[in-house]
Amino acid sequence: MWPITRLTQALNITYPIIQAPMAGITTAKLVAAVSNAGGLGSLGAALLSPEQMKEAIHQIREMTPHPFAVNLFAPLTHESLALEKIKKMNVLLAPFRKVLQLNELLDITPLKIDFEQQLQIVIEEKVPIFSFTFGILPSKTIEKLKQHGIKIIGTATTVREAKLLENTGADFVVAQGSEAGGHRGSAPDTNVEDALIGSMALIPQIVDALKIPVIGSGGIMDHRGIIAALVLGASGAQLGTAFMTCPEALTHPLHRAALLHSNDESTRITRVFTGRWARSIKNKFLLEMAPHQHALPDFYWQSALTKDIRQAAASQNNPELMSLWSGQAANLCQEKTAEDLMTDIVQKMNKFFA
Amino acid sequence: MWPITRLTQALNITYPIIQAPMAGITTAKLVAAVSNAGGLGSLGAALLSPEQMKEAIHQIREMTPHPFAVNLFAPLTHESLALEKIKKMNVLLAPFRKVLQLNELLDITPLKIDFEQQLQIVIEEKVPIFSFTFGILPSKTIEKLKQHGIKIIGTATTVREAKLLENTGADFVVAQGSEAGGHRGSAPDTNVEDALIGSMALIPQIVDALKIPVIGSGGIMDHRGIIAALVLGASGAQLGTAFMTCPEALTHPLHRAALLHSNDESTRITRVFTGRWARSIKNKFLLEMAPHQHALPDFYWQSALTKDIRQAAASQNNPELMSLWSGQAANLCQEKTAEDLMTDIVQKMNKFFA
Repeated sequence: MWPITRLTQALNITYPIIQAPMAGITTAKLVAAVSNAGGLGSLGAALLSPEQMKEAIHQIREMTPHPFAVNLFAPLTHESLALEKIKKMNVLLAPFRKVLQLNELLDITPLKIDFEQQLQIVIEEKVPIFSFTFGILPSKTIEKLKQHGIKIIGTATTVREAKLLENTGADFVVAQGSEAGGHRGSAPDTNVEDALIGSMALIPQIVDALKIPVIGSGGIMDHRGIIAALVLGASGAQLGTAFMTCPEALTHPLHRAALLHSNDESTRITRVFTGRWARSIKNKFLLEMAPHQHALPDFYWQSALTKDIRQAAASQNNPELMSLWSGQAANLCQEKTAEDLMTDIVQKMNKFFA
Repeated sequence: MWPITRLTQALNITYPIIQAPMAGITTAKLVAAVSNAGGLGSLGAALLSPEQMKEAIHQIREMTPHPFAVNLFAPLTHESLALEKIKKMNVLLAPFRKVLQLNELLDITPLKIDFEQQLQIVIEEKVPIFSFTFGILPSKTIEKLKQHGIKIIGTATTVREAKLLENTGADFVVAQGSEAGGHRGSAPDTNVEDALIGSMALIPQIVDALKIPVIGSGGIMDHRGIIAALVLGASGAQLGTAFMTCPEALTHPLHRAALLHSNDESTRITRVFTGRWARSIKNKFLLEMAPHQHALPDFYWQSALTKDIRQAAASQNNPELMSLWSGQAANLCQEKTAEDLMTDIVQKMNKFFA
């Protein structure tokens, strides 16, 4: 028998499988495909404008009557204009700009995210499930969302963060193990280098520490990982990298190729692309900038400083200068549509639970 | 129904549970208790003299008729006398020696392990199962052991290492995830910092790459982790940290206390204690020496250089200057005898498989 978990019951979904909200990768089509297949699709909306969010949410609703989630970044404080650091960084970035025939960056427009406006869209659009990462939201924000009938999923990389999320009123917590690809979901006051806890150790510790249901994530690629997360005490599993090679994802063709040709030793946790610790496949940019990663400006500035490089690398098809977000088991990626991937997982889980 | 795995069948044990061979921690009593309870006890014999090995093996045999394993370190090449590095290291270690009222180290006796002699004992004593770590043994060594009817378990931290172990004739491979405590089992040519792969990602990738049975390890503390490893495709699970708080283990009382009072963020991968990357609970020595860890001499020298400090810290009950090996889920340690811990695990697994 299939496990009915606290997650599937509360969210009214068939399978305890969440497609991770990956900003810049997820599309309305991907989200809807996963929700239509009985899982929970999530829109990584953090980098979208309120208008873009609205449009994507409408598109999702046109394609599925099922629940879905919208994900945002918890607001981060940031360094004031660190001119000295930025100058030094521009010197280090100059050789990469040269390769890509980019001009020197004279005007920097730091990352601009209007969280309050984004949140307003979540409420106005009556999004069924709201998830967030990069920290803890104030109780009153959580309360407001809940008053509108919205279910809340927080993200934790440590037991401490998970407890804080529970205390502020979150309905569920994603336990993000060190295997996960892309940005670490850690809170600003967490030492990310000490918060690289593998899923096998993290999930049961968070499960034991909380009363609310936990969602396992990090290194989960197929039915085996999902069942393992459930066995460790989780009420569901969140898969990111596994969905990146689906045609519905916005993943760059060379990023897809890098995922499919990766092995278990391909990735590293790095700050060089955006100033925030994230797991990427090693390439020229990551390796050459690595010695400087403790002196980088923060997310607000570094993501802006490398934006032209990452964009030009993508349009010029240069995988050595793009961010190649990936978990530690990308080798298990399949080239299937989201629907086929879900069907495959469900069939294998059915066999296990038969 | 309990899963009969390729491991339990081949080793003639009841449960697919291995107590990890922890050099300096395991005792004949611990090994025998685990084997008597239906698992596989392992003697961490790497730091024992041939005579001590013989004695411990005899003691185990007096206490149990069941199979057990003996574990050794694969021989490592080492730096030639790095006088400059050693001099610098002694300057850095001087303040710790002062705290412990130790004299300056004038004569260094580097770590001495006679692997060939140790191996001879394994053969002479007809040890049923031989396991090893820190690399790949030559096929002819493996063959020789197998000719004596000895089953072989290698240790891998990456898919590449696992394949090499299979190719050289090992019967089983332990997949050591990044969560594991103590020394990384990596081979000398592996970049350990890129080989910190969480169990959730590592186990299925190694399972898919090999024909021989795989044993999951790293972060596994109880029935949940064991079942998760099996679900990920492993034929068994190896638990180290979970057995460190058993009274049968040689774990120092303050080391036990540190394990029991740890949390998920307590540990770090470090080279400072022995020159080899290992996971320990953070203390004064680990944190203060951390900035120098890339300039340390290798295992052969650094383990010798810090030996007096670690020993004096233990006898003076100073946990700040001891190595406090620990996995990432020591928080789940219990204060039970090995027999009671095994009974607890087996009862909970019985319930799961009922």
